[in-house]
Amino acid sequence: MSTRQTSNTSEQQNTERKLTDLEIAQQAELLPIAEIAAKLGLQEDEWEGYGRYKAKVDLSVLERTAERPEGKLILVTAMNPTVAGEGKTTVSVGLAQAMNRLNHRTVLALREPSMGPVFGMKGGATGGGYSQVVPMEEINLHFTGDMHAITAANNLLAALIDNHIQHGNELGLDPRRIVWKRALDMNDRALRQVIIGLGGKQNGTPREDGFDITVASEIMAILCLAQDLHDLKEMIGNILIGYTYSNDPVYVRQLKVQGAIAALLKDALKPNLVQTLEHTPVLIHGGPFANIAHGCNSILATKMAMRLGEYAVTEAGFGADLGAEKFFHIKCRKGKFVPSAVVLVATIRALKLHGGMSPGELHTVNPEAVKRGFANVEHHVEMLRKFEVPIVIALNHFYQDDEEEIAVFESLCQSLGIEYSIAKVWEHGGEGGLELAAKVIAAAQDSPARLPMLYDTEQDLRTKIEAIAREIYGASSVVFSDQAERQLKQIARMGWDRLPVCMAKTQYSLSDNPALIGRPQDFAIHVRELQPKLGAGFIVALTGKMLTMPGLPRMPMAIGIDLDDQGRITGLS
Amino acid sequence: MSTRQTSNTSEQQNTERKLTDLEIAQQAELLPIAEIAAKLGLQEDEWEGYGRYKAKVDLSVLERTAERPEGKLILVTAMNPTVAGEGKTTVSVGLAQAMNRLNHRTVLALREPSMGPVFGMKGGATGGGYSQVVPMEEINLHFTGDMHAITAANNLLAALIDNHIQHGNELGLDPRRIVWKRALDMNDRALRQVIIGLGGKQNGTPREDGFDITVASEIMAILCLAQDLHDLKEMIGNILIGYTYSNDPVYVRQLKVQGAIAALLKDALKPNLVQTLEHTPVLIHGGPFANIAHGCNSILATKMAMRLGEYAVTEAGFGADLGAEKFFHIKCRKGKFVPSAVVLVATIRALKLHGGMSPGELHTVNPEAVKRGFANVEHHVEMLRKFEVPIVIALNHFYQDDEEEIAVFESLCQSLGIEYSIAKVWEHGGEGGLELAAKVIAAAQDSPARLPMLYDTEQDLRTKIEAIAREIYGASSVVFSDQAERQLKQIARMGWDRLPVCMAKTQYSLSDNPALIGRPQDFAIHVRELQPKLGAGFIVALTGKMLTMPGLPRMPMAIGIDLDDQGRITGLS
Repeated sequence: MSTRQTSNTSEQQNTERKLTDLEIAQQAELLPIAEIAAKLGLQEDEWEGYGRYKAKVDLSVLERTAERPEGKLILVTAMNPTVAGEGKTTVSVGLAQAMNRLNHRTVLALREPSMGPVFGMKGGATGGGYSQVVPMEEINLHFTGDMHAITAANNLLAALIDNHIQHGNELGLDPRRIVWKRALDMNDRALRQVIIGLGGKQNGTPREDGFDITVASEIMAILCLAQDLHDLKEMIGNILIGYTYSNDPVYVRQLKVQGAIAALLKDALKPNLVQTLEHTPVLIHGGPFANIAHGCNSILATKMAMRLGEYAVTEAGFGADLGAEKFFHIKCRKGKFVPSAVVLVATIRALKLHGGMSPGELHTVNPEAVKRGFANVEHHVEMLRKFEVPIVIALNHFYQDDEEEIAVFESLCQSLGIEYSIAKVWEHGGEGGLELAAKVIAAAQDSPARLPMLYDTEQDLRTKIEAIAREIYGASSVVFSDQAERQLKQIARMGWDRLPVCMAKTQYSLSDNPALIGRPQDFAIHVRELQPKLGAGFIVALTGKMLTMPGLPRMPMAIGIDLDDQGRITGLS
Repeated sequence: MSTRQTSNTSEQQNTERKLTDLEIAQQAELLPIAEIAAKLGLQEDEWEGYGRYKAKVDLSVLERTAERPEGKLILVTAMNPTVAGEGKTTVSVGLAQAMNRLNHRTVLALREPSMGPVFGMKGGATGGGYSQVVPMEEINLHFTGDMHAITAANNLLAALIDNHIQHGNELGLDPRRIVWKRALDMNDRALRQVIIGLGGKQNGTPREDGFDITVASEIMAILCLAQDLHDLKEMIGNILIGYTYSNDPVYVRQLKVQGAIAALLKDALKPNLVQTLEHTPVLIHGGPFANIAHGCNSILATKMAMRLGEYAVTEAGFGADLGAEKFFHIKCRKGKFVPSAVVLVATIRALKLHGGMSPGELHTVNPEAVKRGFANVEHHVEMLRKFEVPIVIALNHFYQDDEEEIAVFESLCQSLGIEYSIAKVWEHGGEGGLELAAKVIAAAQDSPARLPMLYDTEQDLRTKIEAIAREIYGASSVVFSDQAERQLKQIARMGWDRLPVCMAKTQYSLSDNPALIGRPQDFAIHVRELQPKLGAGFIVALTGKMLTMPGLPRMPMAIGIDLDDQGRITGLS
């Protein structure tokens, strides 16, 4: 291993005093949202401004453009992520900006950030450097209120369930078997496991309960998969809320409250329009957790982006093993999307970590580690080829990256026979992604007419899970826990087994063990539990323990965030 | 008692098929909010649209208009309410509409509805009939997100408190003595009393906790009393969150998170602009509970209404014993407001209930009951006269009201020597309130130069509470519980006793016993507990048990609410 240091360490970065993401965002000159809407060809009655730089777009746009040929869909996904995050959003933004510079009208469809991480560890989720979506503070905080509407809808249902039990429990709901949890858009570990209903008869029935972070709510998944208001209400009606004392399932429609819950989501179902630093139109809408749910923005926003752009660029959460798989099998299946190209994001840092280096060593130049880590990229390429979509690898370039390591990466891509580009979109915005854009556009010209699925929903649940484990993760076998075995039978008996599978697995490894980095071989996938999400329309298969309510770190970002007397926010990242 | 029926019973009302409030609101032709803003003389950069019919008004308006002579302030308050609600908002809206018809430029400053009651029993809070604020559904549901921002700010603080304990508890917070609760804008009785932090070390420290409805959060009271962003942040920093193991108080500023919490409230601090059915401009902003908090809309919205209108009409929650008292002593004190007139709302129905009739008998004509019930009005008039503000009584007319009963009401007002008017604003909008408007305008011409306070903040806490009990409620004595006696001493020792008092008392009676209707005599007020709200800047004196988290009824309104495929909401009221 070479002990030479990479050309710019993070200490040097501080000395040079690059602007922070927030500073870049706050210095940007935004166009009034009316101009962005006009750019998209929206009619005046098809959007409503929410402040000067945000808008909600009416779903009637989809009716008006129903006959229009759809733009090509580009999915941005990634190798297995590391603790730092690999910058899918940054690359998506940079790519779309670059495509517009090449005079290809391109619209982004991205996920809405959760507020939890903003005050916790990770910070916001609007890209970085000169490839950001703005207004950054507003998108990362309340935005247009979608997240709050989902929280309210989730908790209205919860209150109505306990209220049903309180007033006679006509449906015979077993308080020990209610599967619907409460939600908050906050990292709050103390709410993971609670007892509610204490204090006597007037305060409800004591029972165990818990809170999920809002993005983990089934309501969020529903919002992202609903095709229109009618579908939304029907999906809400289908939510399984628990079981009776005699083991019968109970659905929301039995409480007759899907209308009230849908009423709370009326505006949240409309995609939100904002812009990038280079005024590329962005539809930001919906952001389900990529572990417990399917991790993609809404079908409606993606469809709208395809109707309004020559190209639509979208992303899916975590690595391709989770994000792209669920994008194809769940979102594309329901939305009838056929993507024209896939961009696989990698970073030198992630390659080195997958090559066995520890985070503390990353500033050391180590081409060998890059080479070893590339096995992870190789796996994703082989897996993605099964979907017959053209692939371009984007190296999300950090200005500290070492030239020798980049050269190793390039030669590995060449020997794999795959297109690639070094994307300097963080540092240079669209200008830094022109080559990537040209390659993506070229790749998308051979776009396939259909998207092959690696499993059929009509197969039984075990077969579907095994297909994903083998074909996507490269697992040698699947082990079902006793509980999962019982649930397989129960789900089949209920007739719920003809739904797609939503895998819940660690994002850090192709396996279900986060320690197995790179390209693990000969491993089993352990399915611990199955959770029917009948509203969203999939069965979650849990491998390992998924946290659906994050906690705050010792020094939460909240301590560094401030507001001055003029209303300017500082310390967001 | 006459057994004749009132001219229109509620059954007849149904036969006639009067339009519902929602139907009237949905049929209204609204002006684009830009026109309302222009009417108010707002400059283009002073407001931001939130959809087509809502806007947020920038606080810079207050700077630009700082030298302008302020409009006259009219407070709308009421006799002690009954289960049905007496229609303060309806009268406020009708009055302002009428004043504009008389060519007096009048701006309303009202409270924001909580979403809890919308799905529970009470329905929305945007007035009724032809005196409504619109868009009704949006104001009653998410509006511009203020309520959600307050919920998030409240819960961010809660998460940060438990996180502080989790990571070493440097401040030594005693988990048994944390006074900061979590909040949701939902009627959810099962959350009143909970245990959080279960499930082992990673899930926090188990402790008793509870959820309040958002409008009962101290953050709401702070938002309504803050003078600007600087004040807001300082008030948040002053919030008392609990005590250490050695009994020392702990404040938010010790956690250093007032900046992050204020950042969440940056936009929520801006008043919201909407319109009435007759296009009168309305600033709707803030709505603290009138029992546990002070029950008035924000100081900022009221100030803005006074700067932008010749008249500003505002309201305060519940009857004058709670609402007007706290409006004068808490809001006017901090905002330096001197109201020019007070409108006291009464209804025939409420008079009859205070006269001893039961709700089931109300359709029976009973002038004697009206006469007996009028004693309640008489008390409020006597009490309000102590504040030296001109008073006009408004009878909020229901079209079922009996003429004979109205005549009794009129002669009682005459013998009391007080101005009054029969306001038919529910049925006829502003047209039905012209006489009331003329009388209010006339009364406001003699407006006093100062507002006398019935207590001085420099007095000790016991003296202040006794002043309110005797002078406002007409109580003969005040009994402090042992706990309250201890707290009086503790609060004095801490130096917190020079703050105004915020009484928490049932709204149904002048006493602390809801059964004592009319004008009770020779009663004591029982102060059970004192709660220092050091952020809001008042000490809450609890008489009786106040519910700060409502529950849902057996048949919640949620079951009747629906959303059709075109996005039209039905069943809201």
